[in-house]
Amino acid sequence: MVELRFNPGDYVQLKLAQFRELEGTALESHDKSIVLLKLRSGYNIGIPKENILGSKILKKFKDEKREYKLPSGKGKPKIGMIITGGTIAAKLDSKTGGVHWLTDTAEFAKFYPKLFEKVDVKKIEVPFMMASENMSYNEWAKIAESVEKMLNDKDIKGVIITHGTDTLHYTAAALSFFLRNLNKPVVLTYSQRSIDRASSDAELNLQCAVEMALSDCAEVVLVGHASMDDDHCHALIGTKTKKMHTSRRDAFKSVNIGPLAKVWKDNVEFLEERRPRNDEKVELDTNFSDKIALVKFYPGQDPDILDYYKDKGYKGIIIEATGLGHVASSESKNSWVIKIKKLIKEGVIVCAVAQTIYGRLNPKVYSLGRELEETGVIFLEDMLAETAFVKLGWVLGHRTWKGKEKEKMLENFAREFNELLKE
Amino acid sequence: MVELRFNPGDYVQLKLAQFRELEGTALESHDKSIVLLKLRSGYNIGIPKENILGSKILKKFKDEKREYKLPSGKGKPKIGMIITGGTIAAKLDSKTGGVHWLTDTAEFAKFYPKLFEKVDVKKIEVPFMMASENMSYNEWAKIAESVEKMLNDKDIKGVIITHGTDTLHYTAAALSFFLRNLNKPVVLTYSQRSIDRASSDAELNLQCAVEMALSDCAEVVLVGHASMDDDHCHALIGTKTKKMHTSRRDAFKSVNIGPLAKVWKDNVEFLEERRPRNDEKVELDTNFSDKIALVKFYPGQDPDILDYYKDKGYKGIIIEATGLGHVASSESKNSWVIKIKKLIKEGVIVCAVAQTIYGRLNPKVYSLGRELEETGVIFLEDMLAETAFVKLGWVLGHRTWKGKEKEKMLENFAREFNELLKE
Repeated sequence: MVELRFNPGDYVQLKLAQFRELEGTALESHDKSIVLLKLRSGYNIGIPKENILGSKILKKFKDEKREYKLPSGKGKPKIGMIITGGTIAAKLDSKTGGVHWLTDTAEFAKFYPKLFEKVDVKKIEVPFMMASENMSYNEWAKIAESVEKMLNDKDIKGVIITHGTDTLHYTAAALSFFLRNLNKPVVLTYSQRSIDRASSDAELNLQCAVEMALSDCAEVVLVGHASMDDDHCHALIGTKTKKMHTSRRDAFKSVNIGPLAKVWKDNVEFLEERRPRNDEKVELDTNFSDKIALVKFYPGQDPDILDYYKDKGYKGIIIEATGLGHVASSESKNSWVIKIKKLIKEGVIVCAVAQTIYGRLNPKVYSLGRELEETGVIFLEDMLAETAFVKLGWVLGHRTWKGKEKEKMLENFAREFNELLKE
Repeated sequence: MVELRFNPGDYVQLKLAQFRELEGTALESHDKSIVLLKLRSGYNIGIPKENILGSKILKKFKDEKREYKLPSGKGKPKIGMIITGGTIAAKLDSKTGGVHWLTDTAEFAKFYPKLFEKVDVKKIEVPFMMASENMSYNEWAKIAESVEKMLNDKDIKGVIITHGTDTLHYTAAALSFFLRNLNKPVVLTYSQRSIDRASSDAELNLQCAVEMALSDCAEVVLVGHASMDDDHCHALIGTKTKKMHTSRRDAFKSVNIGPLAKVWKDNVEFLEERRPRNDEKVELDTNFSDKIALVKFYPGQDPDILDYYKDKGYKGIIIEATGLGHVASSESKNSWVIKIKKLIKEGVIVCAVAQTIYGRLNPKVYSLGRELEETGVIFLEDMLAETAFVKLGWVLGHRTWKGKEKEKMLENFAREFNELLKE
């Protein structure tokens, strides 16, 4: 057996039988007879040492954390930053093959030096580190609390939040409702591919996020790749955006309205009207009731699911209806209309959104739509399901709005309705 | 008060005070002091007769049903046709303002004369007339039975099915699985705007459907507007298509693969590989278990919903997961992973699809994905949620496939997986 002269963390090339070669990062292995390798694809593979004919170190592991010093912020515009986990704040732990969070400012700065060259990150907060699929209301409120303090700090020009992608659009909607009288840009950004990978979108997204955070607007936006090219980003309206692809760098798309702005590393071009930067004091309004559900209607579905929520004390339900706003009618043996009527009489707030994602509801076109409308369902126009879910929790969280739920659900608080929809 | 000289069904113009005018179809009104008018927008409006200063008939009502004779089919290619309701088979009942179904062949032919000029509709079946939001498994099976008979009739070149749009993509998926050894085109078509309206898409869709039904392929497809223009259609693969807009004429889009063909009124250009027309005997396989559910995962959602289905005897669940195939992990206080693990141990088949709609799942990228994979969840690659739901019911409906559910869910029966996905 050959002697292998590399250590965990090194990026190595192994020679195997039949002229085959493998490249990857060597990981710590508990079984000393096995070399554990993390391949570029993300897979870990174990190779018995006896099958390895030779090895070469392509890149020696360095603990880069210790080597980096934050550049001076003197004379640069100041921003606030909130780091919450997700791929953009994760790197491969070269020793274990797992994820290592970049919670340390210096380490974050090492990965994204250009960010710190351009601005003075006056304040970095790390309220928690979490993959976004594990987040919910509590995390949205914590982020909003941190943002509010930064926005009301006169020195800070704007706020950047790094976040996982899976539920980023829910967080964007939540911040849009929780932060009233917005005065500066609140920019959520992310990456779909980690910074370890050649195809990473993190660097461009963050640089464009900085540009957006310094721009003349007071909106909650998502900033990320505009296309599959690594050329420029879009800033998308927080309440009108949905993750529309599992893996592409331009996974986020705005729905029923265009992007708010095109963003380059050194320029912002606004494409839609925006609320301008102003001197108002931002108010935090994180009232929320989590007794809400989101239900997608589908053929043959038993409407008893609605009773299930009612019986568990749920106060509001968003239904992803078909077409222009339909569910199984009173003629159907699985009538949703009859069940919904009952729930509304019992005090549950029931709203409809479009499961087609794009387009606007119109219950008046067909008699089945009119029948559903007569039950008292609130048709949420062209609002996204995810935004509607967050908004319903927020509206129901306000005790003083009791009896005004419909009016509040239909009030345009944070661009959740596009009044100007052209089709 | 002026005398009003029009009858229910007439399209009229009313003169009101202040030089205002209203146009619409006069409806039968029970209150003799009110003129009831159906406006172009679809709204009904009641106007007290005393406010009407004058009237003009723009188009006299004719009971057109009696006037039309089916043209001879002699020498024309033969097709089969199934009419099931939906906007394409509905017209305004000029007397009541409600919907009138075009179940009568002669009447259907009157609205769509070009269809009957080109082909000999050898057989028309009307298994039921229903808005698609009321359909479910029973209707899918009935349609499949009618289609199977037509496909095994040597004279018939292809089958056209007219259908409502709301759940058309579910029916398309169901037919794709229910009809084995397909030998000819099975073409679903629809309209988003009724034939009464100037912007109706029905005429082009039907003519292109005919062209597709005569083409050299053996696939279940949806044929409808390719864009907002009234120019040509796309034929979309039955298992890869979703309604993506509430009202646009090009509401249906294929997902993770391009259209199968561009279709004009007199030509078909195939864009993807297709199964060619052949002489096999089509077999009907409508086995189905309706103890299946489709659940969209969202932030903070209580995983007890999974127990609800388990307790009701459900055998399979499709979860619309976030991102590359994630749910709240074992670290979350609302852990879905732990609950799913329990359900799978108890014998429930749990599958994951992408709630982003576009893209392919890959549970191996992140540790939270790998954790979910270890529970035994079946990750359905790039399959649509709606298709996955129908397929799960179909797979579970086969008793002899017991124990092979995973293998069958991952077998590519009807193009539900795109093996060639490029990103």
